[in-house]
Amino acid sequence: MRTLGIDPGTRVMGYGIVDAVGNSLKHVDNGGIFTDSADPLNKRLKVIYDEICGIIQQYRPDVISIEDVFYHKNIKSALKLGHSRGVAILAGTNAGLDIFEYTPTAIKSAVVGYGRAEKGQVQQMIKVLLKLPEVPQADAADALAAAICHINTAGTTNRRKMNEMR
Amino acid sequence: MRTLGIDPGTRVMGYGIVDAVGNSLKHVDNGGIFTDSADPLNKRLKVIYDEICGIIQQYRPDVISIEDVFYHKNIKSALKLGHSRGVAILAGTNAGLDIFEYTPTAIKSAVVGYGRAEKGQVQQMIKVLLKLPEVPQADAADALAAAICHINTAGTTNRRKMNEMR
Repeated sequence: MRTLGIDPGTRVMGYGIVDAVGNSLKHVDNGGIFTDSADPLNKRLKVIYDEICGIIQQYRPDVISIEDVFYHKNIKSALKLGHSRGVAILAGTNAGLDIFEYTPTAIKSAVVGYGRAEKGQVQQMIKVLLKLPEVPQADAADALAAAICHINTAGTTNRRKMNEMR
Repeated sequence: MRTLGIDPGTRVMGYGIVDAVGNSLKHVDNGGIFTDSADPLNKRLKVIYDEICGIIQQYRPDVISIEDVFYHKNIKSALKLGHSRGVAILAGTNAGLDIFEYTPTAIKSAVVGYGRAEKGQVQQMIKVLLKLPEVPQADAADALAAAICHINTAGTTNRRKMNEMR
């Protein structure tokens, strides 16, 4: 099973692809979709949508695991983040993929064993778990963590398919 | 010039198409895209995206005028609204349309002459301005108002193209 993890963001949207091979994890790729804050919103949303469509086409994941967001600093940035997350979910849905959501706490717990872990701890654990030559960029690490969270919660009640969510 | 006005919403997304013919306004169509709150988010976003793509294909508007949102009751609903508004903007952008944004105050002022007008007043004025046989549904009226706002602010500094926004 190949999982595309997504860490939603307006400036940087992290992505990470992980294969579950038997009981082990295999890193496929990771990176970030960067948008220019000097660009208008419609252009930035199209960049995110097109890039995620491209990643799906290139790597053919079986499912998407995306971080659930229900808290944010303020209304304005929450609205902005919603725009980006919406087009990312749409890209997956238009490709016919099932989408699973996990809270930041569940994702951190899945990789560090502690729901309130720091970003740096997540990056370090991702490096170890996926046997990477170096620590991945923070947003990409969060996306890889989302993918691992999905793989590791297979068959548990923590797994929340978006089709089962409201 | 044909303008597609959009009133973004998660449960109902209003739309309204208005032609500017010389100095007069001509109503073309209006309605709402309804999504079922019992459906998962990804399905609802796909419904909104597909419906707006269909409306654009059917009516071939020249531009989109969409209500700008920067305030909301709470973070959770702001995030949700952001998802819906994001896929609506993406549908217009993927069709190559220019997108203009107006604040709720500017839209109300454009049709009622008063930025804090009630929903009912907007509906009544839309009926009069567009010579409709009956009062349109509230979300559709707001969408028609967004279209009229765009038409009426042509050449003024109130016109804010998304390409010129951050």
